[in-house]
Amino acid sequence: MTLKAGIVGGTGYTGVELLRLLAQHPQVELKTITSRKEAGTPVARMFPSLRRKVDLAFTEPGARALAGCDVVFFATPNGVAMGEARAVLEGGAKVIDLSADFRIKDLAEWERWYKLKHAAPDLVREAVYGLPELNRSRIKGARLVANPGCYPTATQLGFLPLVEAGVVDLDHLIADAKSGVSGAGRKAELPLSFSEASDNFAAYNVPGHRHWPEIRQGLAQAAEREVGLVFTTHLTPLIRGIHATLYARVTKEADFQQLFEKRYANEPFVDVMPPGSHPDTRSVRAANTCRIALHRPPERARGSDTLVVLSVIDNLVKGASGQAVQNMNLMFGFPETTGLEQVAVVP
Amino acid sequence: MTLKAGIVGGTGYTGVELLRLLAQHPQVELKTITSRKEAGTPVARMFPSLRRKVDLAFTEPGARALAGCDVVFFATPNGVAMGEARAVLEGGAKVIDLSADFRIKDLAEWERWYKLKHAAPDLVREAVYGLPELNRSRIKGARLVANPGCYPTATQLGFLPLVEAGVVDLDHLIADAKSGVSGAGRKAELPLSFSEASDNFAAYNVPGHRHWPEIRQGLAQAAEREVGLVFTTHLTPLIRGIHATLYARVTKEADFQQLFEKRYANEPFVDVMPPGSHPDTRSVRAANTCRIALHRPPERARGSDTLVVLSVIDNLVKGASGQAVQNMNLMFGFPETTGLEQVAVVP
Amino acid sequence: MTLKAGIVGGTGYTGVELLRLLAQHPQVELKTITSRKEAGTPVARMFPSLRRKVDLAFTEPGARALAGCDVVFFATPNGVAMGEARAVLEGGAKVIDLSADFRIKDLAEWERWYKLKHAAPDLVREAVYGLPELNRSRIKGARLVANPGCYPTATQLGFLPLVEAGVVDLDHLIADAKSGVSGAGRKAELPLSFSEASDNFAAYNVPGHRHWPEIRQGLAQAAEREVGLVFTTHLTPLIRGIHATLYARVTKEADFQQLFEKRYANEPFVDVMPPGSHPDTRSVRAANTCRIALHRPPERARGSDTLVVLSVIDNLVKGASGQAVQNMNLMFGFPETTGLEQVAVVP
Amino acid sequence: MTLKAGIVGGTGYTGVELLRLLAQHPQVELKTITSRKEAGTPVARMFPSLRRKVDLAFTEPGARALAGCDVVFFATPNGVAMGEARAVLEGGAKVIDLSADFRIKDLAEWERWYKLKHAAPDLVREAVYGLPELNRSRIKGARLVANPGCYPTATQLGFLPLVEAGVVDLDHLIADAKSGVSGAGRKAELPLSFSEASDNFAAYNVPGHRHWPEIRQGLAQAAEREVGLVFTTHLTPLIRGIHATLYARVTKEADFQQLFEKRYANEPFVDVMPPGSHPDTRSVRAANTCRIALHRPPERARGSDTLVVLSVIDNLVKGASGQAVQNMNLMFGFPETTGLEQVAVVP
Repeated sequence: MTLKAGIVGGTGYTGVELLRLLAQHPQVELKTITSRKEAGTPVARMFPSLRRKVDLAFTEPGARALAGCDVVFFATPNGVAMGEARAVLEGGAKVIDLSADFRIKDLAEWERWYKLKHAAPDLVREAVYGLPELNRSRIKGARLVANPGCYPTATQLGFLPLVEAGVVDLDHLIADAKSGVSGAGRKAELPLSFSEASDNFAAYNVPGHRHWPEIRQGLAQAAEREVGLVFTTHLTPLIRGIHATLYARVTKEADFQQLFEKRYANEPFVDVMPPGSHPDTRSVRAANTCRIALHRPPERARGSDTLVVLSVIDNLVKGASGQAVQNMNLMFGFPETTGLEQVAVVP
Repeated sequence: MTLKAGIVGGTGYTGVELLRLLAQHPQVELKTITSRKEAGTPVARMFPSLRRKVDLAFTEPGARALAGCDVVFFATPNGVAMGEARAVLEGGAKVIDLSADFRIKDLAEWERWYKLKHAAPDLVREAVYGLPELNRSRIKGARLVANPGCYPTATQLGFLPLVEAGVVDLDHLIADAKSGVSGAGRKAELPLSFSEASDNFAAYNVPGHRHWPEIRQGLAQAAEREVGLVFTTHLTPLIRGIHATLYARVTKEADFQQLFEKRYANEPFVDVMPPGSHPDTRSVRAANTCRIALHRPPERARGSDTLVVLSVIDNLVKGASGQAVQNMNLMFGFPETTGLEQVAVVP
Repeated sequence: MTLKAGIVGGTGYTGVELLRLLAQHPQVELKTITSRKEAGTPVARMFPSLRRKVDLAFTEPGARALAGCDVVFFATPNGVAMGEARAVLEGGAKVIDLSADFRIKDLAEWERWYKLKHAAPDLVREAVYGLPELNRSRIKGARLVANPGCYPTATQLGFLPLVEAGVVDLDHLIADAKSGVSGAGRKAELPLSFSEASDNFAAYNVPGHRHWPEIRQGLAQAAEREVGLVFTTHLTPLIRGIHATLYARVTKEADFQQLFEKRYANEPFVDVMPPGSHPDTRSVRAANTCRIALHRPPERARGSDTLVVLSVIDNLVKGASGQAVQNMNLMFGFPETTGLEQVAVVP
Repeated sequence: MTLKAGIVGGTGYTGVELLRLLAQHPQVELKTITSRKEAGTPVARMFPSLRRKVDLAFTEPGARALAGCDVVFFATPNGVAMGEARAVLEGGAKVIDLSADFRIKDLAEWERWYKLKHAAPDLVREAVYGLPELNRSRIKGARLVANPGCYPTATQLGFLPLVEAGVVDLDHLIADAKSGVSGAGRKAELPLSFSEASDNFAAYNVPGHRHWPEIRQGLAQAAEREVGLVFTTHLTPLIRGIHATLYARVTKEADFQQLFEKRYANEPFVDVMPPGSHPDTRSVRAANTCRIALHRPPERARGSDTLVVLSVIDNLVKGASGQAVQNMNLMFGFPETTGLEQVAVVP
């Protein structure tokens, strides 16, 4: 079986990463990629890395361009998919949205953070949040998947076993997260320029980041109660990679290493590392993997009640396009790892 | 008045940074710089950036080489100054040690972390911990100053006002710190190589870092009681810079911005930024400045009881050699900012 | 004597670098800095690195804002100074233009490369090309100085001794030049973004770069004849720095090392390194220095008739703002090195 | 058919890159990887990026460890393969040597540059230089392939069509080459450290680089006469990538773009880009591709007789391990692109 795939808005980094992955997927035929601005331009002219790999040109967006697709990925800015997904669904395709449009169930919360009026509340209700490690069975039956954000993927995977087991203080979780610059997208913005962002490190959006409600929603689902979370984001001079350093106060002692290993024993894309490990972001560069390690560092002379979890992903793969392909595999009954066996690129 | 200055072990990054600063100090004459391995080599052959600025050659170490110096800086690996400082002091010079030999008053603790038997316990007792913002008056009278570590400088300056005021939970402080690579020194080690450390981000030494007891000692002095601290360190791909992200649970409400502004109102090298700021490391690159900002990010739907403090320094300047010159100015009665007026290099 | 200095268009990298240098210049008072877009904004709000160093706010541009200045620097995009310099000169100030408006004497050539009609041909005739090593005496008497471009500074200083001595083939010079990203200015452009420019290397503008006619003009002045030059530019992932690798075919044997050393013996800002050296860009980072080394690498089994000259500068200092201050010192009779003694920042 | 593959000396960057590529090759079974120093260590403990991908542990080197292998790759320092290849060949395996031991036919020349006495002159005579675009048919029949160096691959592919066609001055070729840091290998050396090599650019080995005789030998084979070459190497702050900027004086006019397009029309891994292009190194990052573009920039007012060729590769793939796999495919009759279809990783 060969799927016909379409991509809406393929000129950003999640778009070109989807192209890289789908071009190597044995059961996908890239059929359409749309871009209003670049309609007519061969994809490989914009991205020479795809020369001889992708023969398509960008086409005008719209339902007609996508007719005949079995699956359509939205790699668009926030606010686009909520307007266009319905027509695609009605055309018979399944939809995987890499933007934030269908991630947050609480519409008022979504509208507060994204400063938009939501155009498709019913689709928000229908959409399945596409974190396979949390929602695998529902993803398999979904018509519309809301692909998680990059920070939320790294953070939720790091906290999930603790939150599900109810062994830490759920009112005071802390996630200190660091992201490479590609997480901000393919944008001409001064703070993202090489001369500003390289050889430099800073926090940003500390007063509030849009991924905060998304993480809290996922953890609340796992905990079956509200959680408290301080979430701090930083820009670090790498292209790809998120490193989340997570802090949780132990409320009930357990063998935490074993807890994590059991929880993720059957997960093809979550790697719980041996005790004492420090996963680095490059160990997952260009790969659909989340690596996690646990620590219990000293706090006072006599010990500690704070657990430290280190969680790394490639923001463009497990944090975006790779996870989207993983969701596609689940939705169409392929083995979950099909087309996602790439080995991380080191060095 | 012109001081005659000597540097012991001048081939590392704190050494060459001392040379950069002292070469521009109007009241210092560089007299001697020692290196066993490089004795005879002109300093500017090893560091071409110093051509036409520093005419000295490295000389064999030893008390004779340093005779006639008014001040001697030890920019040596840990374990050297404790053996050599006494002779220098007895020769009449004042000593500023940039290594860790005299920083920790609890000898057993020091020996546990540094895996050495201490050679000069009496000098540990005499030494003044050289964080001017904490110990200014004692530094002025000191013969031997233990210059603080880089992480401890950024972390203590960020926590000090809160700890002194007793308004946060002192049992559960968290410091999530990120350092540029020069913090590890001028060393040929694989994990520090460009191919390993660039485009990469990882935590290290999470089970325990040598700067942890140093920070706890300083905060305990300020708090007049023991404190609990989780201290996590990360390597980030920049040359210079430390960014400490500090978390503290509020136990007593206050105007925290005002608390910080007042505490540091007269400090020439601590800059409390306006509310909402995110100091970046490059804003202090090559300058003897610590910039600090405060935040109270959302934690639950209804608020937060966690304060986030952002504190940045250049690890080689305010975190090492600049602070050493600041201490020298205090010890010899110069205006504290003499020779330290360099503007940060941006971009 | 204290000069009152004004800067027109101070929001770019050459502007902020002028601020860094002038703030440390003992005989300059920063009086005015203009920016149409940022009028009213405190300079230090835009550039936190200047907090406590520069108290000015940006003001509306115009002759009135600059009244009372002794010297005015134009750090504006090309095409601005040619319209505004006359009024400033008539107001009695001397002008140093860091843009390209007054660099090229051949107006047709200038208009071809800059795609503008020149507004002040008489001022082009009057302007002195501000490469002190070539035009020192004329700069001293100038009212209007055209500050050289960054590539032209590194390239001309590397070729000058050979061209003046007439010992190489002047029809086939080759300059293979590499620039850090700040050379492109403080701009929000996609190719300059961190995700595009880091961990990447490429040539650009190989079919023709605006600095090509400028270099040829300077070398022709030195040679007293036209020269042929292939000039290739590359973007390399550093913030500051230009490395020009220059190739010239020997037509007359000589002691080339001695030729260079003699030529630059009295130049405070040109450093001819010992034979066998490979100057690196960081050895001049943040300093007003050009370092040069010569090589005669093997070409055939039996030798070579090609000389290779390596020339490095910091594009924002000796390649722009530092050279502008050097010109100011010459124009106002200060010692040439005043305010320019900064030691390069290494590492 | 499944090949059993062995790797001698698998702890360097070419070794881990071979592992990445071979782990994804559909017709290769990784059987053995040796390392004297790391014998017993699981490969994935040293390279966490290979967790779940490579299950082997390093074993002691020696012919016994490699018994049963169909193909053996030497990813060893220079001087090892010349001593050990014979036993492997006699054991019946084919050998691909990624070091320089069998590249240079002129033994005296080899010994001069590598400072070693050659141990196997007969194998040097037998070995085929493994640049498929030059020697494809001989590689197919080879028992021992000398895999080219990284600079020589980029440089020869850029010059080949011109040299074969005899349309440029063969006495004065110039190659100005820039390499990422991984080209120097996985080594703990100070000049390769992040603090030294990042935000920095410099030439190195200008008086003479070991790849110079290798390039001259290959071009001489194509030209059927000796060639003159000035070859300058630079270290640029990227992990992977070589950019060769090549200069040649035209002696006979031709349609050079067409010449290149024809020459490489059937080459799966050489991409001649459209006129006006500037290939960037990231467009081949992690891919087995060489991209080439041609330019004829202005030299004098009226034109130019110098051609500029831009040639980029990933030094670890087309410049080392990918080319080795390409050679293996040829030697064993697989389609040449098997296992080498990876799309470049951008951004």
